[in-house]
Amino acid sequence: MSDYHLSDLQHGKAECRLVKVDRSAADGSEHVLHDLNVTTQLRGDFATAYTAGDNSHVHATDTQKNTVFALARQHGVGSPEEFLLVLAEHWRAQPWVTGTWFAAEQFAWDRIPANGHSFVRSGQVTRTAWAQTWGEDTYVLGGLKDLTVLKSTGSEFHGFPRDRYTSLAETDDRILATSVSATWRYAAPLQDTSYDGVFDTVHEAMTGAFADTHSLALQQTIHAMGAAALDACADLAEIRISCPNRHHFLVDLEPFGLDNPGEVFLAADRPYGLISATLSRTGVDEPRAWTGMPG
Amino acid sequence: MSDYHLSDLQHGKAECRLVKVDRSAADGSEHVLHDLNVTTQLRGDFATAYTAGDNSHVHATDTQKNTVFALARQHGVGSPEEFLLVLAEHWRAQPWVTGTWFAAEQFAWDRIPANGHSFVRSGQVTRTAWAQTWGEDTYVLGGLKDLTVLKSTGSEFHGFPRDRYTSLAETDDRILATSVSATWRYAAPLQDTSYDGVFDTVHEAMTGAFADTHSLALQQTIHAMGAAALDACADLAEIRISCPNRHHFLVDLEPFGLDNPGEVFLAADRPYGLISATLSRTGVDEPRAWTGMPG
Amino acid sequence: MSDYHLSDLQHGKAECRLVKVDRSAADGSEHVLHDLNVTTQLRGDFATAYTAGDNSHVHATDTQKNTVFALARQHGVGSPEEFLLVLAEHWRAQPWVTGTWFAAEQFAWDRIPANGHSFVRSGQVTRTAWAQTWGEDTYVLGGLKDLTVLKSTGSEFHGFPRDRYTSLAETDDRILATSVSATWRYAAPLQDTSYDGVFDTVHEAMTGAFADTHSLALQQTIHAMGAAALDACADLAEIRISCPNRHHFLVDLEPFGLDNPGEVFLAADRPYGLISATLSRTGVDEPRAWTGMPG
Amino acid sequence: MSDYHLSDLQHGKAECRLVKVDRSAADGSEHVLHDLNVTTQLRGDFATAYTAGDNSHVHATDTQKNTVFALARQHGVGSPEEFLLVLAEHWRAQPWVTGTWFAAEQFAWDRIPANGHSFVRSGQVTRTAWAQTWGEDTYVLGGLKDLTVLKSTGSEFHGFPRDRYTSLAETDDRILATSVSATWRYAAPLQDTSYDGVFDTVHEAMTGAFADTHSLALQQTIHAMGAAALDACADLAEIRISCPNRHHFLVDLEPFGLDNPGEVFLAADRPYGLISATLSRTGVDEPRAWTGMPG
Repeated sequence: MSDYHLSDLQHGKAECRLVKVDRSAADGSEHVLHDLNVTTQLRGDFATAYTAGDNSHVHATDTQKNTVFALARQHGVGSPEEFLLVLAEHWRAQPWVTGTWFAAEQFAWDRIPANGHSFVRSGQVTRTAWAQTWGEDTYVLGGLKDLTVLKSTGSEFHGFPRDRYTSLAETDDRILATSVSATWRYAAPLQDTSYDGVFDTVHEAMTGAFADTHSLALQQTIHAMGAAALDACADLAEIRISCPNRHHFLVDLEPFGLDNPGEVFLAADRPYGLISATLSRTGVDEPRAWTGMPG
Repeated sequence: MSDYHLSDLQHGKAECRLVKVDRSAADGSEHVLHDLNVTTQLRGDFATAYTAGDNSHVHATDTQKNTVFALARQHGVGSPEEFLLVLAEHWRAQPWVTGTWFAAEQFAWDRIPANGHSFVRSGQVTRTAWAQTWGEDTYVLGGLKDLTVLKSTGSEFHGFPRDRYTSLAETDDRILATSVSATWRYAAPLQDTSYDGVFDTVHEAMTGAFADTHSLALQQTIHAMGAAALDACADLAEIRISCPNRHHFLVDLEPFGLDNPGEVFLAADRPYGLISATLSRTGVDEPRAWTGMPG
Repeated sequence: MSDYHLSDLQHGKAECRLVKVDRSAADGSEHVLHDLNVTTQLRGDFATAYTAGDNSHVHATDTQKNTVFALARQHGVGSPEEFLLVLAEHWRAQPWVTGTWFAAEQFAWDRIPANGHSFVRSGQVTRTAWAQTWGEDTYVLGGLKDLTVLKSTGSEFHGFPRDRYTSLAETDDRILATSVSATWRYAAPLQDTSYDGVFDTVHEAMTGAFADTHSLALQQTIHAMGAAALDACADLAEIRISCPNRHHFLVDLEPFGLDNPGEVFLAADRPYGLISATLSRTGVDEPRAWTGMPG
Repeated sequence: MSDYHLSDLQHGKAECRLVKVDRSAADGSEHVLHDLNVTTQLRGDFATAYTAGDNSHVHATDTQKNTVFALARQHGVGSPEEFLLVLAEHWRAQPWVTGTWFAAEQFAWDRIPANGHSFVRSGQVTRTAWAQTWGEDTYVLGGLKDLTVLKSTGSEFHGFPRDRYTSLAETDDRILATSVSATWRYAAPLQDTSYDGVFDTVHEAMTGAFADTHSLALQQTIHAMGAAALDACADLAEIRISCPNRHHFLVDLEPFGLDNPGEVFLAADRPYGLISATLSRTGVDEPRAWTGMPG
């Protein structure tokens, strides 16, 4: 086996479902809820665990899980980015750890007006965050996913090349629907700005750009959303966007003696178009920040 | 095989994803979106299809699907209950059909303010509806599901019996979280009232009752939600509610030298408690209305 | 609220993932694995929990979970039906419990030949079982689901009625594919026969009938599978079968200058046909056995 | 917007569910089934679609889908790797396309013995494949996922570091269970060897290594599986393995007066350990082959 090389060694605890209740309001009446799904991954000098079952350098994934909950108690959660940075600082200081990767999903809750401690889960969007370290270097990503948007007009698609296998008709009015996934890289960890504020700004900018763009291609809408995010937030160095095209097919009702002027659609599941792009500010490439990210 | 008896024969098309755009505003500027997942089932004199492959009485499921889209064009969708009743009337009149069962899920969309044709999907709750016929009789059910609610205080659980296998500690302050599924039976198909209005009223009554109830048991909260629904809507004859208890376990941080005064919780997936009940107005039992419903 | 009636009160623990290892082979070398997903539900005199939060009759769902694991240790698992009957006997004897309902999924594992304690999960079929009691009466159901089968020829569909909304072409050669769900009722709890043996017999009978039946309709195949099950096992009083029609559409390649003689298909997700039937031995109807079962 | 840079532009059709029936046996009696889920992605000179909605270089995703089905008719499917290479050659030759990325899942079916055209889907493992091109360069990856394996003994875990947040007990006998995901890179597209043969060899080598390894850490088992794959197949240049640790917790039955000598376990869902590694033959690094792969 001496001709094999081991690399990319990492281990951690995936999907720690952490709920943190802040009861810090002066009169205790208004609770704040943080609902996160946290994953940890440590990189380092772990080769003998693989080659010989020697665990002396392996921080057990159970320990990593405990650390998530204990640090949430000690430092609070704040924003998902801030909490992942707390984890990153803790683990960067441990022996045998040369790098780390942390991920979080955050689920949003709306208040039920009756009192300060009742909530209904809002399924409109899932917030995402990542932090990773390579030695002393730290990278922070934010994001959103599951943001499903639809325009019932204001979308065209034509002018594409036609070859032997092209049968799609051109259209100047279709439904455009997608579920937006976007991940942005912070130029540096934020100092004076709030991650929560950035998320709200980007979320609003992208939703607005989707609505405002008269779309000649989903590509154009993706570009408009990405540009709106970068324009709105100077702290973002780049943004990667991936959008399924959730096809809504106009149903052909002519065989049944009926017209169908853009009214009745079949929403299809599979297959679906899948379009993506990266928008970066010039000269700020940083590929290590994206290590381990989904394709 | 003569000693076998065939029954419960039915066939239909499941999960027709119908999206209907209403463009009827005077100036065409404001679209209304109906986003439904429709299932059809016909019952009747179909035995020879099973015993001999004779399809002469079998309305193809493909025909049923076409009918869903064609009737959406001809009659519009209105509310899911009204649309299922349109399907019911159509199929009740066809030969060999002695009964029908129709189901719909409706997904809600919020408007993006920019214009009248841009929407973002709201994941807060899924609306449900069923219509079924037995000969001339018609039954209508409405419902909601995926309504995930949480109280970070105002929930206790104690006084339960203790036996050899009981280890649960009593508590006077816990997180109470559940995903509400409720199905209500209309005393009769509505004449002058709007199904949409009833849905909104019940949705608000149940959410409010969840928040307002200081809960000594999830059972008590279920009862409060059901009673609030019946109190709010005279058109409801009964309501069936089923609620998982989405456990949030207070993490024991003492081994790590930390207290945890109701702050840090682990949200667990499985197993989960599952509690249910039916509330009916006295003397209005109608079991046929519930045929074919999930347990 | 005095005009409401409470009914169908039940509570339990859903989806207890129980894995039981039997090491009882004489030389300890061959392990037997039982991998179950168990749900409990108790019915009884629980009304004051709903109306007043009085839990004095409420066996906590946590206690029910503990009981599942403790009884697995004391009585072993054997077959899922036998284990559910152990649960049923235990809970029938407890105060305030007037009825019970238990469900199990069982996941199959194949042995890896290397030794007696290594397994690979077989995803071919999921076994199901239910037991329920009403006072002294006991009902046992067995079943299977997720059994996905396909015939690449030997399936026709024609002779169905044509109306205004019928566009489906008739065919004398199509792919027939479905995912079989079947639930059977035992005439009585088995005494001398093995539930495992019955499951294997029914599983084989149904799979064989699917393959052997030249199918003029999925209905005919369902009937053949049900009849084969009843013919193979005298212990079955009735069987309920539900089958989605997993459509495989022959792709029209003519626009691309190609024929397609039954070779290239698109496997569709939604919508899908859904066909069901019950086959019963004459005179053995027992509706209470099916209370709480999925529609 | 002139300070933004666009990159990683790609579009394609995701999850084309292609089923191909080969009826080529001399007497037509034995069918061969290919059941694939195919995704296409084209890279190239598409910037004006994003910036100006100019689609003149955008091969519609609908055209890509049609091409999948048409090429399956013309060239057959063979193995998933071969089919993706057919797609790659086709698209590499099209204008404006500078790179491609194709993925496939393949679902296995077992024969039902009754005849040559009846099948039951085997859920034991999903086969995966990818091909991508960068100009003239071509990379091929194979893989497997959803291979769920379990050892009921022969697994220990101890000797890991203990810090303030470590509470896990050491054990010299536990259940080890995981769902293996592995992706291997072929040193070059195969010429004389069969991709199907390689898949079978790797699948068997990894399953055998899982069973044969007395495991002191899941890391050690991962290494053994990877080494077995590389040892068994000289065509593999490297293999990446990622394994969740599907925890099976020994239930503490002592509070109920029962012992539990490795018999009754709770199979947990979340959180779970997640361990990964890459094994490479020395000196054959090729990072472009992994572009766009899941993290």
